[in-house]
Amino acid sequence: MMAPAADGTPVGLIAGGGSLPFTVADQLAAQGRKPVVFALRGFCDPKQVSRFTHHWVSIGQFGAAKRLLRAEGCRDLVFIGSLVRPALSELRLDLGTLRVMPSVIRAYRGGDDHLLSRVGRIFEAHGFRVLGIRDVAPELLMPEGAMTRHRPDARAEADIVRGRAVLAALSPFDVGQAVVVIDGHVVAVEGIEGTDAMLARVAQLRRDRVVRADVGRGVLVKAAKRGQDLRFDLPTVGPRTVREAEAAGLAGLAIVAGNALVAEAQEMVEAADKAGLFVVGLSA
Amino acid sequence: MMAPAADGTPVGLIAGGGSLPFTVADQLAAQGRKPVVFALRGFCDPKQVSRFTHHWVSIGQFGAAKRLLRAEGCRDLVFIGSLVRPALSELRLDLGTLRVMPSVIRAYRGGDDHLLSRVGRIFEAHGFRVLGIRDVAPELLMPEGAMTRHRPDARAEADIVRGRAVLAALSPFDVGQAVVVIDGHVVAVEGIEGTDAMLARVAQLRRDRVVRADVGRGVLVKAAKRGQDLRFDLPTVGPRTVREAEAAGLAGLAIVAGNALVAEAQEMVEAADKAGLFVVGLSA
Repeated sequence: MMAPAADGTPVGLIAGGGSLPFTVADQLAAQGRKPVVFALRGFCDPKQVSRFTHHWVSIGQFGAAKRLLRAEGCRDLVFIGSLVRPALSELRLDLGTLRVMPSVIRAYRGGDDHLLSRVGRIFEAHGFRVLGIRDVAPELLMPEGAMTRHRPDARAEADIVRGRAVLAALSPFDVGQAVVVIDGHVVAVEGIEGTDAMLARVAQLRRDRVVRADVGRGVLVKAAKRGQDLRFDLPTVGPRTVREAEAAGLAGLAIVAGNALVAEAQEMVEAADKAGLFVVGLSA
Repeated sequence: MMAPAADGTPVGLIAGGGSLPFTVADQLAAQGRKPVVFALRGFCDPKQVSRFTHHWVSIGQFGAAKRLLRAEGCRDLVFIGSLVRPALSELRLDLGTLRVMPSVIRAYRGGDDHLLSRVGRIFEAHGFRVLGIRDVAPELLMPEGAMTRHRPDARAEADIVRGRAVLAALSPFDVGQAVVVIDGHVVAVEGIEGTDAMLARVAQLRRDRVVRADVGRGVLVKAAKRGQDLRFDLPTVGPRTVREAEAAGLAGLAIVAGNALVAEAQEMVEAADKAGLFVVGLSA
């Protein structure tokens, strides 16, 4: 990955939903680099953004964003926060966007995973530098080893091994960042529904008694896809993931270290300790 | 596979739910082999079974089943029909079962896919011969080529290729008999929830606009797992699969030929023709 700029210039945060953009902004400020938040309309939290120098922008307003970034002296950008993919008709396309339109449309048609990375490449083609969390706030990434009081037992370790093997097999297909393995059985594979929806499915399969294993068995195993550009699409875990895993009756979460963001780490670990779940970072 | 017995002895059908046990029974009768239906209590349809020589048996009553099979002169067995896995406590274990208990418990703990095949092996160890649909009614298996008026276009063909590759990659893991691929994206992977539930998920993802492809795009690709014993666990498609695929907005179904049973073929093809979907058998 790219080394972080140590030149003290402001960093533009292209900020979607959730608390992570502000956590990153705080980290940058603590490092002495001014964050300038480019708050994505409809995604970014208006309350929290008011703490920072910010501009509201719409997805599709590339021209406006480019001008504002230059006016703020931001050469470095970070894309951060959740983004539910809007309909093309909901995008407000400005003149600058219309000029780069073929690239945007191509980006759009490429599917969720590639939209942001292609938009990022457009920014890069215009002289900006796109950094990842690894560059600006590596302390937010999943660490190696257990974060929790509880640790995987031998049965959970075996489920983790199996889950990693499934994810490795699926990796070439741009699918399956996560699986649930219970007592050696691959119970659920994540498609495009997302990890939370997959865990909700496992909870339902338990209620329907399709899954009959004891509660406290099974592991959510989560990794990044091969070739995934982690500057744009970093798997994220947090307290909600722990709550969903608890509802699914699992023993814990195993996440490839360095390849996932931990949102609200302290709250997540407290929730896991309380529920008796482990959260463990696997060496990449 | 084993050659069918041409000796004209009666065939014992261990019959679960759905119409397939009776279709197979009719096929056997047409071939001049008497079917004797061993109707599984709680699964087999009481109305239809009355047309045939039959005995009601419970899962777990191995001893009783063995005696009845011998009394009926059945050396050959076929396991056929749907079977939702019961709780161990719901099984009525008879003396014959208690004698083979360690094998049954092992079979039970092995998970859905292996329960029937291990029970089958117990019957084999007691001198019975377990036949597959391929042996007794191969005309019920998915044929090669299009069954429907509609055929896959180039886009659907590309989705089929991708789906087969994903299933091949997952095959070693005893998971994923089916995937949904839309415009090159792997949208859903079947875990233990079953094909119908996976298709319902895709329909929901469309309603939620997570999947934004036009209706009439995408393919359900379905195969048997590597090493799957097709005498016990044959993937099945039928009119319901077509209806679910239609609700999921797909262009059609692609099923590996010879490795899946077609339930109510005529009704399935009529439903597909009416909905504008294709059903195509892929060469194995």
